Amino acid sequence: MNSKVGQSIFIVSFGRGEDCQVTIDKAQKEQHPLYMQIADGVVRLIRDGQLPDGARLPTVRELSQGFAVTRVTVQNAYNELKTNGWADATIGRGTFVTFAQPVHSETIEIAVNKMTPDRVMADLSVIKEKEDIISLAMGEPDRALLPAKAFMKTLRQLEADANVLFSYGPYQGDPQLRQMLASLLRERGVRASAEEFIITTGVTQGLSLSVSALCDVGDRVLVEQPTYLGFLNLLKTYQLQPLGVPMLEDGPCVETIERFMREERPRAYYTVPQFHNPTGSCMSLEKRKKILALAKQYDVTIIEDDVYGQLHYGEGVIQPMKALDTDDIVVYLGSFSKMLFPGVRVGFMIPPTSFKERLMSFVRARELCGSPFVQRGLAEFMRSGALHKHLSHILPIYKERCDAMLAALGESMPKEVAWTRPEGGYCCWVTLPEEIEFGELYRETLRKGVAFTPGVVFFQETSSTRHLRLCFCTQTPQSIHKAIRILGDVVRRLLRRPSKQSLHMELQQPVV
Amino acid sequence: MNSKVGQSIFIVSFGRGEDCQVTIDKAQKEQHPLYMQIADGVVRLIRDGQLPDGARLPTVRELSQGFAVTRVTVQNAYNELKTNGWADATIGRGTFVTFAQPVHSETIEIAVNKMTPDRVMADLSVIKEKEDIISLAMGEPDRALLPAKAFMKTLRQLEADANVLFSYGPYQGDPQLRQMLASLLRERGVRASAEEFIITTGVTQGLSLSVSALCDVGDRVLVEQPTYLGFLNLLKTYQLQPLGVPMLEDGPCVETIERFMREERPRAYYTVPQFHNPTGSCMSLEKRKKILALAKQYDVTIIEDDVYGQLHYGEGVIQPMKALDTDDIVVYLGSFSKMLFPGVRVGFMIPPTSFKERLMSFVRARELCGSPFVQRGLAEFMRSGALHKHLSHILPIYKERCDAMLAALGESMPKEVAWTRPEGGYCCWVTLPEEIEFGELYRETLRKGVAFTPGVVFFQETSSTRHLRLCFCTQTPQSIHKAIRILGDVVRRLLRRPSKQSLHMELQQPVV
Repeated sequence: MNSKVGQSIFIVSFGRGEDCQVTIDKAQKEQHPLYMQIADGVVRLIRDGQLPDGARLPTVRELSQGFAVTRVTVQNAYNELKTNGWADATIGRGTFVTFAQPVHSETIEIAVNKMTPDRVMADLSVIKEKEDIISLAMGEPDRALLPAKAFMKTLRQLEADANVLFSYGPYQGDPQLRQMLASLLRERGVRASAEEFIITTGVTQGLSLSVSALCDVGDRVLVEQPTYLGFLNLLKTYQLQPLGVPMLEDGPCVETIERFMREERPRAYYTVPQFHNPTGSCMSLEKRKKILALAKQYDVTIIEDDVYGQLHYGEGVIQPMKALDTDDIVVYLGSFSKMLFPGVRVGFMIPPTSFKERLMSFVRARELCGSPFVQRGLAEFMRSGALHKHLSHILPIYKERCDAMLAALGESMPKEVAWTRPEGGYCCWVTLPEEIEFGELYRETLRKGVAFTPGVVFFQETSSTRHLRLCFCTQTPQSIHKAIRILGDVVRRLLRRPSKQSLHMELQQPVV
Repeated sequence: MNSKVGQSIFIVSFGRGEDCQVTIDKAQKEQHPLYMQIADGVVRLIRDGQLPDGARLPTVRELSQGFAVTRVTVQNAYNELKTNGWADATIGRGTFVTFAQPVHSETIEIAVNKMTPDRVMADLSVIKEKEDIISLAMGEPDRALLPAKAFMKTLRQLEADANVLFSYGPYQGDPQLRQMLASLLRERGVRASAEEFIITTGVTQGLSLSVSALCDVGDRVLVEQPTYLGFLNLLKTYQLQPLGVPMLEDGPCVETIERFMREERPRAYYTVPQFHNPTGSCMSLEKRKKILALAKQYDVTIIEDDVYGQLHYGEGVIQPMKALDTDDIVVYLGSFSKMLFPGVRVGFMIPPTSFKERLMSFVRARELCGSPFVQRGLAEFMRSGALHKHLSHILPIYKERCDAMLAALGESMPKEVAWTRPEGGYCCWVTLPEEIEFGELYRETLRKGVAFTPGVVFFQETSSTRHLRLCFCTQTPQSIHKAIRILGDVVRRLLRRPSKQSLHMELQQPVV
């Protein structure tokens, strides 16, 4: 360890060569405390690759001598490094560089009274990283099946245009991608041209823009009950009022929709007609037509979330409501997140013609534009046929998992338990015969290595604890069987004894 | 050309092999009109690569015979293909595949009465694609200088983790990227840990989330006058009320800020203290401290847009207001768009501690997450030192362009014209001695091949037409000299004659 002493400059070597030194300037200590100067110097060495992951840092004694500072100063510097995840100390062994360790060790806080949609969303993203848990909680594609390498190959082919594609892109999104999407949606009966599409960073952002451009604070919005928890969350941030429409087996209760439209003057109706989240059900063609007619009659915009639209495990083509929309009142939203992968963060929408300019203003003001590079990559990926090839590959696999889930439920659940039989999408909705102590169900199942989404978060106001959402797409049939056996055991045990917790509210309508 | 006639199925070959056929089914014509079936079939062949760009399509006569339909039906199919940009016809030569042509030929609509921020933003993105125009209008990095290839090389190195990185990522953003950013900002005196950062899809999205989480409809927000037009646009979509603070040479007028804070109870103050957009000026250290103290006193949140922070062409380090913020009242926002390239769509923010959870709820509800793949790529790019290397490369080049702009203005502008002398960022602000007929200035200059941003869009209410924003970063010194000569000539000519258009409003304060 060398140290040079100048007027106020001290230099200490942390390794070989001049690149691996830290300099402090005591004349600067007012503006930049010495311990920070030391910590910042070390960070710079780590960042520049001079101190690799696992490298041992000098002892406190060595540094305090080298810099001619107190041990407390060095200790403070090391604490700073530890706090920020750059270093870690092992008693008796020393302090080591730990670049790229998780910055913050998040814990799963599970409690029934914290089961807000927002909290559950935050928890689930932590749970899914735990390798010893079979998670049936997250509605996302199986990582093992993602065609990431194929997509990266496509991206490499864009190199010739890279400088243009890394600049700002068109607000509306890449024209070639819009063209490919127009063609994809045509296969399902939606006859929109590329000009009518707006590219978003996902369905969530599309919903956010739509809701915000359509509604004013306090406006009412019809939602299915249960519905996608993210949408309930979204309404909350915009101070909009959800009106819950109960779900029946073939879609929402049309009578309730009509009553609400007539009496409550909602601004919009949010629906997931295809492979509904969380129930997995499909809205019947008849209901789609009835609801379109009602929306026209009462001037309500339909927000159609078709994020699972391409994930149909049965035969034939199911047309989105947009395909039936002769009055131009449907905002259609889709995404690559479920049919390809979420990590590209690209979705799309087709708004009613009269609404498009207002939406574009919102896009320009709030988002500017998406990534032209990623969007062009997706266009090329689709053009090469790779998206269709991917869908042909995954649909039979997901169908098998869906079947496994239904079989496992049949085998492991007590006979009073009911569930939906999805023909597409990611999830299945389980209804218990009575309210149970849900916190215990959730914690106990998790302790035994299985996670699911508590149904309560898909409701806007009920405190019903009779429902579970189970996602089958990220697990193999074997894991699904194992998980459902565990879940079934816990459910049986809890159903066998009377619930300790009384109910605040009963559901007024049957829920699938 | 083969055609098989079944009960209602007609198949026509468009090229060799079975892959290059289009099938129509006359039994389906109610649900799917025949012309659409033909058009959709052709689109599928184009998309699948069977009909390459430039391929000649069969004649109308050939198709009408092959499908046994009328010529009008075929003509309708071809019109559909043309409307959607899949094909183009040349009289006497036939119809040809034109995949990847611009979907829609946008025109530049320029008129003084349309110069809203939103309209101008839309126009500028069209203008910049015109190759025969020297555009000084867009605040973006020079495409020729973007290290896109180097970044793609970094992305390739992520292949081993690709499946995880193409899944949903952490709502807060990649931990490694946040760690690298914490280190970058430390170099400029901001001592925030990685945990305090939130990754966004750009400063625009960060501003949108911040404003929306801070303010209710009708709230007042202080803005500098002039200010970034995108922010004015943003306030409009949230129905927030801007209060304009005049800009002086060393930053905003502090007396006006104090008066507004005392009398108008604004919720936030939006500022671009470093290399201000559009003026290019820097706020003095003294003013920064005064404004921080006032904000503390009147409980106003400061929204600091530091998008140009790393683009300093002078010596030394300029600290953001966040570095001076001892009361935790600054929402700090930055981005890769200006210091690296916009096409990645990644920005970042450091909110006050007390505000972070609310912001995270908004992120989860409205955006879900960014692209983990792109974010990790940026972390690795920074870690390898490539960002610092890139900055060392571009700063001298941008400085040269800035100098060229100032020299050219000195040579070509009449002596009554004033302009700022930026030491960083992208732009320079020109003030004419009097109001002129601005529509003519804008159109005439554009006609001669030069585009700039009309100053009027950076003001919330004034109709002053005395200002121009000139961006120097996308042009070579030669182009800058040429453009300013042209601009100077037009300005001289217009100043020589009395303005025909009277003024609605005078500025109350001097504007730099």
